[in-house]
Amino acid sequence: MPRTLVAPARSIAEQLASKQREISVAEFFERNRQILGFDNPQRSLLTTVKEAVDNGLDASEEAGILPDLRVEISKEGEGGDRLRVAVEDSGPGIVRREIPNVFGRLLYGSRFHSNRQARGQQGIGISAAVLYAGLTTARPARITSKIAEEEGARVLELILDTQKNLPRIVSEEVQLWDREHGTRIELVLKAKYIRGRQSPLEYLRGTAIVNPHARIVLVEPDGTKITFERATSELPPISKETLPHPYGLELGELGYLLKASKRENIREMLSRDLAGVSVRASREVVAAAGLKGSEAPASLSGEAQEKLLAGLRGVELVAPSAEGLSPIGPMLIKRGLRNVLGEVRPDFFAPPVSRPPKVRGGFPFLVEVGLVYGGGLPADQPLQLLRFANRVPLLFQQGACAITSAVAAIDWRRYGLDQKGGSGLPAGPCLLLVHVASTKIPFTSEAKEALAEDEDLDRELTLAIQAAARHLKAHLSRVGRRQFASDKFAIIQKILPRLAEKASHLIDQPVPDLAPVITKIMDVVTLEPTVLADARSVQVTVKITNYTARPRVLEIFLEIDPTTLALAEYAPAPEGIDRGLGRAWWTLEKLASNARTQIELRFPARTDVEANDLDFYVAGVDEAHLLGADPLPGDWDVRLPRAIIEAAETAANGPTDEEEVDYDAAEASAHVSEDEG
Amino acid sequence: MPRTLVAPARSIAEQLASKQREISVAEFFERNRQILGFDNPQRSLLTTVKEAVDNGLDASEEAGILPDLRVEISKEGEGGDRLRVAVEDSGPGIVRREIPNVFGRLLYGSRFHSNRQARGQQGIGISAAVLYAGLTTARPARITSKIAEEEGARVLELILDTQKNLPRIVSEEVQLWDREHGTRIELVLKAKYIRGRQSPLEYLRGTAIVNPHARIVLVEPDGTKITFERATSELPPISKETLPHPYGLELGELGYLLKASKRENIREMLSRDLAGVSVRASREVVAAAGLKGSEAPASLSGEAQEKLLAGLRGVELVAPSAEGLSPIGPMLIKRGLRNVLGEVRPDFFAPPVSRPPKVRGGFPFLVEVGLVYGGGLPADQPLQLLRFANRVPLLFQQGACAITSAVAAIDWRRYGLDQKGGSGLPAGPCLLLVHVASTKIPFTSEAKEALAEDEDLDRELTLAIQAAARHLKAHLSRVGRRQFASDKFAIIQKILPRLAEKASHLIDQPVPDLAPVITKIMDVVTLEPTVLADARSVQVTVKITNYTARPRVLEIFLEIDPTTLALAEYAPAPEGIDRGLGRAWWTLEKLASNARTQIELRFPARTDVEANDLDFYVAGVDEAHLLGADPLPGDWDVRLPRAIIEAAETAANGPTDEEEVDYDAAEASAHVSEDEG
Repeated sequence: MPRTLVAPARSIAEQLASKQREISVAEFFERNRQILGFDNPQRSLLTTVKEAVDNGLDASEEAGILPDLRVEISKEGEGGDRLRVAVEDSGPGIVRREIPNVFGRLLYGSRFHSNRQARGQQGIGISAAVLYAGLTTARPARITSKIAEEEGARVLELILDTQKNLPRIVSEEVQLWDREHGTRIELVLKAKYIRGRQSPLEYLRGTAIVNPHARIVLVEPDGTKITFERATSELPPISKETLPHPYGLELGELGYLLKASKRENIREMLSRDLAGVSVRASREVVAAAGLKGSEAPASLSGEAQEKLLAGLRGVELVAPSAEGLSPIGPMLIKRGLRNVLGEVRPDFFAPPVSRPPKVRGGFPFLVEVGLVYGGGLPADQPLQLLRFANRVPLLFQQGACAITSAVAAIDWRRYGLDQKGGSGLPAGPCLLLVHVASTKIPFTSEAKEALAEDEDLDRELTLAIQAAARHLKAHLSRVGRRQFASDKFAIIQKILPRLAEKASHLIDQPVPDLAPVITKIMDVVTLEPTVLADARSVQVTVKITNYTARPRVLEIFLEIDPTTLALAEYAPAPEGIDRGLGRAWWTLEKLASNARTQIELRFPARTDVEANDLDFYVAGVDEAHLLGADPLPGDWDVRLPRAIIEAAETAANGPTDEEEVDYDAAEASAHVSEDEG
Repeated sequence: MPRTLVAPARSIAEQLASKQREISVAEFFERNRQILGFDNPQRSLLTTVKEAVDNGLDASEEAGILPDLRVEISKEGEGGDRLRVAVEDSGPGIVRREIPNVFGRLLYGSRFHSNRQARGQQGIGISAAVLYAGLTTARPARITSKIAEEEGARVLELILDTQKNLPRIVSEEVQLWDREHGTRIELVLKAKYIRGRQSPLEYLRGTAIVNPHARIVLVEPDGTKITFERATSELPPISKETLPHPYGLELGELGYLLKASKRENIREMLSRDLAGVSVRASREVVAAAGLKGSEAPASLSGEAQEKLLAGLRGVELVAPSAEGLSPIGPMLIKRGLRNVLGEVRPDFFAPPVSRPPKVRGGFPFLVEVGLVYGGGLPADQPLQLLRFANRVPLLFQQGACAITSAVAAIDWRRYGLDQKGGSGLPAGPCLLLVHVASTKIPFTSEAKEALAEDEDLDRELTLAIQAAARHLKAHLSRVGRRQFASDKFAIIQKILPRLAEKASHLIDQPVPDLAPVITKIMDVVTLEPTVLADARSVQVTVKITNYTARPRVLEIFLEIDPTTLALAEYAPAPEGIDRGLGRAWWTLEKLASNARTQIELRFPARTDVEANDLDFYVAGVDEAHLLGADPLPGDWDVRLPRAIIEAAETAANGPTDEEEVDYDAAEASAHVSEDEG
């Protein structure tokens, strides 16, 4: 087999052996800096700003301080290929002894081992920026940090020694600083400033959208100052540290937990070191694993560990809590989207979707989705996708992101968008916002720009996006039907009287009363909401008119974002309310032919409620005879005594009755559309 | 500013500080294993096979041994979610003391610091597989390795301790092994075996294509055995270690080189530690930097270093050599494509494109491209893209790869393919192979599945792909023209005689000789190559017929892959040959109207030469009067005395002569198409 060898084999094995060497993690990333997001001057600038801002936000929030950030970017030197970047935050500051490691050492940080949602999780980002700066300009990073109870701020200049992956302090002093507490980092690096796509500006705008509690100032190289003011002074609930949940835990991971556990015995370890395992459950698990439960956690054999894991998988556990997570929430998603859209007024805001938390590899995560459609959005372009992870906008690598794949894998034609071959990004005037929150985001690389493919994540993404897509579909078909029916209505009301007039004139007879005729022809129940907003509140009046030939018992159902519903005042009072789902419903008095009634809603201290925000459904009349609302979807499990009685009555005394049938049909079809999920 | 704090600020800064901790690189990758390509069972299997196979190929080649690899994948245990993977290579083996670190320690290896092309460059891959195996099944890796001059093979079982990032040996013994030398790794991991897209099989097939010197055997879980036999027993030239080239060197990098240098003074350091810097150049650089040259490398101040770098950028240096690189080469690219296509016979093989080496960040790289079109390839699908980096197929993250972006950024409509909006992957029966070879590939993550965007890389990719695309365009237009002209030819030769017959019959006259008439109507020079292949050789006969009204002096030009040209025998002998470019040309005796002549080519010991491989060009007649070949493109700088004289003659005694004009036009247009590059 061996061909004329370059040298006798011994020395070859030895030669190769002699080349074997350890690689410093800093050397590795210095040589592969593209992995960290530093592969060209434009992206390197964005990454630097991103890492510093994310740290500032994390630090402020952890300390319960409203984030107040300032980003200054200015030209440096003659070459024109260097920029000075300064990012200042209002955080609690960093104690002197930690400053060098935090900024001058890769794989060092406070959030990696804590099982809670944070922007920074790797302990790499900001030190990587320091590394890149040193690499391209050989200039040290200048750190200024002050904690509340020290008079002066510590000012350190340091570089990252890549051979050792350790900080080297170049200079140190104490200075007065006007901030009470906070941190400022200044770097000089090879970089390029741009606006528009994938720019610091776009990143900061995206950040402001999902972090409305933060105030962010950007000073551009030409001196332009852009301020994103605070939209709320409410800090998001501080996400708690959570214990690892057994769902999706791998054998090896369980092994580490057992080894690391300080508990007396396995039963304790299970119930105290893991989330979702009650004392009772821990007993069941131990039993299922055929163990006593008194064994010392570290003592378990590999075999016993396997049995324990099987036990954990077999026993019913408490679902993972969202405590470790800090979702954006429906209101902010909506406000955020408005914010992005600016002047563009879309026709339709889908009610934001927020999935319950799930677990992958012991880490809880949840998916939120917002969708807007129509209006000024470009109709011939692909759907616009806004990706967020732990409240951080993702601007690069859209093509490699699990969020994108989930969107592309859905057949959007079923939901009313154009899509070539039923896969890939659909085309249409549609903007989709997707946020993944997790105590551990599965990024495809240290640059944190795309999420890795994962079955569990993909399922949640798909369900959330499909839910939003179903709202879109309902909207589109509603629009279509309304259009058709109201056109018909308009025509009849115009033409008939004229015909009647002409005819009466010819045969020289008085013009007959057409109301009953029109009713006969129209044969619909109409629902017309009108929204009146003033400076202090929003008033919604819903007119319901029975243009059918016979009396109707109608049930009106309202679906609206729960936080909005909570504020609402009603007349008449609804028969039932589901605050969790944001639903309210009324049973109207029997409404005679040609009769009209109305429901009034008031939203005090709200000015941003729109007709789009209110979804009305009607039971008691079938889809074909309904105008301005949809029949009640099949997935509403509210009981409808009156409607059913009424249906029965009419079935009894009425002639052939298409309603019951149609109503069932409506339900059926509603179920079908459910199955899409 | 500070809101009701969770606790007094001091303790907060302190609290945060107390959480600061170092993160072991193994812990980091254990938690972020998706970054290493271990995010789901299917991909984890592929990554494991890939890392082991790549190492086997690298080791064998470095030792000058023909690679002989065996991959065995078998079911393990009851659960059905575990597989046993064994990969065995014919390499030189690993000396005992290095085995633990090579397989049980991240960021440890022999190729990271060596500036030469290799598949593995990070010192992460195989240890990551060991880490993943331990994590999912808690089973140790079993390593068997034997070097030529030891009787027995070392057999170690080890796991990777993630807290320490160090190997822990579980068992060790010495065994007899039938191999003279080599290494085998056995892992049990949570994995899923599939065939088809992104499967081990696809990866190994791709590997075999661009590594025809390797023999690879795959045994699937169901026992199926697939063997990729060696296509050649020639090892590719072993790529040499090269010094870093100053082009694209960053200031910081230069700093490290200066610090690390063992040279007496800067002048020596420049000429000996850097590639492309002659002794003379080093003097110029030193002068340009305003230095003496006798300074000790380590002694230079930051300012002096900046000047030195400026000097390096200002002075003319020797271009980077391809010594450190091992391209696939035109023959193998072509054979490789045939191999992929199997039964699918395309209409057109573009001559493979290979760009000269360039440099990014001191590391040389080059781009190779192969393109095939038509035949059995699906016409309605997007172009199929085969990506390779250092002879390794890239199967994941196509959407995130610089190669894909380069393809998508080209307006393929200009080259005859469908493309919506002139960007994105074009549609058409087209297969594109792109190979990037470099001493350092800029992967987007440690999983090594996509190349990061980079200006220099993108330029080279674009130029190479466009060159291939131009060949495609030429082919398509040639096909179009030929079709039209030969249709015309056929019709005339059928219809005219019949007409003549009928007419003569009617007027009762003898049928006239039509040859001159047909000639007058056709007015073309035809070139018809016929290819005859037998078991031992290929015989090509090129018939040239002058169907124009007057005598022609013609020059025939042949372009063909140089290695094929080298073998050719000719009758008559060509007037000139350019072996480098693979070109030969003939000046024919004056060819009378209606006269015919021919050129014969023989390729002994070749059976795979096809009409498609031969591109013929003709000078001495304009495009409009040429059938079966193209006019000589403008970028051929061969001198054409006779043709020019002839053109002049005819210009002198002939009437208005469109040829010169058209010939210029042809040249012009050829230049234009060049400018697309």
